[in-house]
Amino acid sequence: MPTLYYTLDNAVFRNFLFYAVASILKMMIMSPLTSRQRFEKNAFANPEDIPLDERKTIQTTTADPDVERIRRNHLNDIENIIPFVLIGFCYIACNPNPTLAVWHFRIFFVSRLLHTLAYQIPLRQPSRALSFLVGFIVTVSMTAQILFQVY
Amino acid sequence: MPTLYYTLDNAVFRNFLFYAVASILKMMIMSPLTSRQRFEKNAFANPEDIPLDERKTIQTTTADPDVERIRRNHLNDIENIIPFVLIGFCYIACNPNPTLAVWHFRIFFVSRLLHTLAYQIPLRQPSRALSFLVGFIVTVSMTAQILFQVY
Amino acid sequence: MPTLYYTLDNAVFRNFLFYAVASILKMMIMSPLTSRQRFEKNAFANPEDIPLDERKTIQTTTADPDVERIRRNHLNDIENIIPFVLIGFCYIACNPNPTLAVWHFRIFFVSRLLHTLAYQIPLRQPSRALSFLVGFIVTVSMTAQILFQVY
Repeated sequence: MPTLYYTLDNAVFRNFLFYAVASILKMMIMSPLTSRQRFEKNAFANPEDIPLDERKTIQTTTADPDVERIRRNHLNDIENIIPFVLIGFCYIACNPNPTLAVWHFRIFFVSRLLHTLAYQIPLRQPSRALSFLVGFIVTVSMTAQILFQVY
Repeated sequence: MPTLYYTLDNAVFRNFLFYAVASILKMMIMSPLTSRQRFEKNAFANPEDIPLDERKTIQTTTADPDVERIRRNHLNDIENIIPFVLIGFCYIACNPNPTLAVWHFRIFFVSRLLHTLAYQIPLRQPSRALSFLVGFIVTVSMTAQILFQVY
Repeated sequence: MPTLYYTLDNAVFRNFLFYAVASILKMMIMSPLTSRQRFEKNAFANPEDIPLDERKTIQTTTADPDVERIRRNHLNDIENIIPFVLIGFCYIACNPNPTLAVWHFRIFFVSRLLHTLAYQIPLRQPSRALSFLVGFIVTVSMTAQILFQVY
């Protein structure tokens, strides 16, 4: 009987589910953070979003530095977390060494937490650049292992 | 024999495929809508996109309100529909109750249709905020069920 | 015994893994290209990114044409490559004809390589529009086949 990889009985897949879902949740949190910042700074992108009693005094803006910082962070998550999850689904089919795999997942997730902290506090560079780079390398390493198996 | 979840014989997966694919298609439609609006408003982001006979009269812009409205809608889809589909693939492995699962998928899909209508007509707030929130909560609910199963 | 589709023994899935991973890698390369361009043009989006010895002479910008060109390319990849990969995972479950499937994957991947070349050189339109359109049609074709199978 062929082996099933996409099942909770497979420890690699089970671990992947946890870290993939946690990373996506971290990314999704950027949406309410953006909304909150928009209200705090009165920085709305659409005219209909401006509270009724303030329509005469404030205008739409897409240039508030605090809102844009969260949005750049969100876009960077999209550029990195989504590829990690997609590549991760492919990686599972290659039946990687469980210990190797889980460390890939863990390091990626922690690197993205640190990236968000470095972006939002903000910490001095190269904190953010390094945390980005670590996550990027993890995904590239998984990609290399897949290509090696498939070709 | 272990149970296979990622197969068309599994009603949950079959339903997921339909709503996932329909949601992605809804998201992809934003691309031609953006192009059409760019031509209608003569609002091009790249110099090479400007029609040859108008190169002397119009300049590139990334600030046309109608084009940017569609683009914000598209980005919001990316921020919400892609996580839904990724989380959905993980959710399938957790073998959820079929009725519960299909209602998650249906409500999500309808919430994103309403979100697009609210954004593009545009409807008065909180129409768009609420439709966003409903889809967001559906994805978080699936996430919670996965984390509960995996840990 | 039911047939397993998500396994390296399935030629369609094996081919999909290669082209999906290659497309994602192509997309991820836009990140270091953006960073390099930011340093070459001294065009940083965050104050903490500006090199210490230049903080008094340069300011943050999100309007450098060369940086923004790469970023628009990256966002277009996100809008197209991620849907392709997600739809691709769904497509595998529909057990498509192997030859038909691999040509979908090949044409998509080549269309996105050409799109990037057309965007970054840049080539005269409609080069970029056509390469975008080809990839878009491939994904829509896969979507149509899935919907046909599922309903």
